[in-house]
Amino acid sequence: MKPKLQVALDNTSLVEALQSLRLYQDAIDVIEVGTILHVAEGIEPVRVLRALYPEKIILADIKGADAGSLLAKLCFDAGATWMTAICSADVNTMIGMKKTGQAYGEDRDVQIELYGDWTMEQAKNWKDAGLEQVVYHRSRDAQAAGKGWDQSDLDKLSALTDMGFKVTITGGLEVHDLALFKDLPIYCIIAGRSIRDASNPLQAAEAFQAEITRLWT
Amino acid sequence: MKPKLQVALDNTSLVEALQSLRLYQDAIDVIEVGTILHVAEGIEPVRVLRALYPEKIILADIKGADAGSLLAKLCFDAGATWMTAICSADVNTMIGMKKTGQAYGEDRDVQIELYGDWTMEQAKNWKDAGLEQVVYHRSRDAQAAGKGWDQSDLDKLSALTDMGFKVTITGGLEVHDLALFKDLPIYCIIAGRSIRDASNPLQAAEAFQAEITRLWT
Repeated sequence: MKPKLQVALDNTSLVEALQSLRLYQDAIDVIEVGTILHVAEGIEPVRVLRALYPEKIILADIKGADAGSLLAKLCFDAGATWMTAICSADVNTMIGMKKTGQAYGEDRDVQIELYGDWTMEQAKNWKDAGLEQVVYHRSRDAQAAGKGWDQSDLDKLSALTDMGFKVTITGGLEVHDLALFKDLPIYCIIAGRSIRDASNPLQAAEAFQAEITRLWT
Repeated sequence: MKPKLQVALDNTSLVEALQSLRLYQDAIDVIEVGTILHVAEGIEPVRVLRALYPEKIILADIKGADAGSLLAKLCFDAGATWMTAICSADVNTMIGMKKTGQAYGEDRDVQIELYGDWTMEQAKNWKDAGLEQVVYHRSRDAQAAGKGWDQSDLDKLSALTDMGFKVTITGGLEVHDLALFKDLPIYCIIAGRSIRDASNPLQAAEAFQAEITRLWT
């Protein structure tokens, strides 16, 4: 199965996000309400996007660290398909999100956001607890500090897919970066500024999809 | 200096939070917009609370993991005094928040939320980078799983205060728990449900303050 294309709406207002999204809505598979947009506008963007796009996968990137069931209820009540937990959350927090989601429907899921010094031992623990999705990051601020993708990223990604995780990759990805990952069964590819800030965002999204098709089929 | 008393508004709506807060507003030092309230309502609660309580310390508990300067701008523009970063964030993310805050005023600060498997080596790294505040947690979901405060918590707290951090403690704290920490120069004590859900929240907040005064002066 080829990777899905996800766009992170890391806008600072819902209106800006909607203006942006309408340009490339037909070319993407997953709409992400970015953490920045959540901080700015709360859960309302999820509600609005669900009303506008009833068939899309909508991800609420809240990076929950605690009170998993309660946060999950907020996200799934608003219409999210997926939500995120931060990797430093207690596994019980993640389990709380997952169980709450399952009560809303089988397609509801939780993604673990891999930031900082998480370990493969933790990953095994998450898998054993029934968590299925992880998001592998090159942090935005790490990027700004000049850190690129390297072999150690690919090794970790490979270990995670071998463990059976559905793995999403993100972090300043451009179309020309995708070939790096072509031998891995990546589940989802997140683009943000490289689509949102393109002079022609639809064309940019289509270029991602074309490259995904070329590499993974 | 005796610890400040902070109440976490972990409500799911701003209206509920305001109804709750007015009962004990005079008895607390720091108003926290909890992560739950941020997920529900975005940054608006900070704006409203700043308008209502111009003199209070207001904490935006967004647990930022990335895009530090941008998130800091959202928080400090809205009137937050302090904001939080998650411990698994890249140190550059925390530095971005801190620097952004300093441009708003000297009292603006960043607290690092200690969840999961953070290490003393990381803590040293944060301190070296100019970060001054940490929040030591017993996770809500870990509490529900029956984990109490123990000697290993006290040892870590002691190490953190020895390193020079201003340390906040949180996690289902009741008045009778406070004596556990009396030998440590705790900076801030967070109560949530034990004040918000008390039959007389003002009395509950005053009981915390009385115990803080008894133990730390």
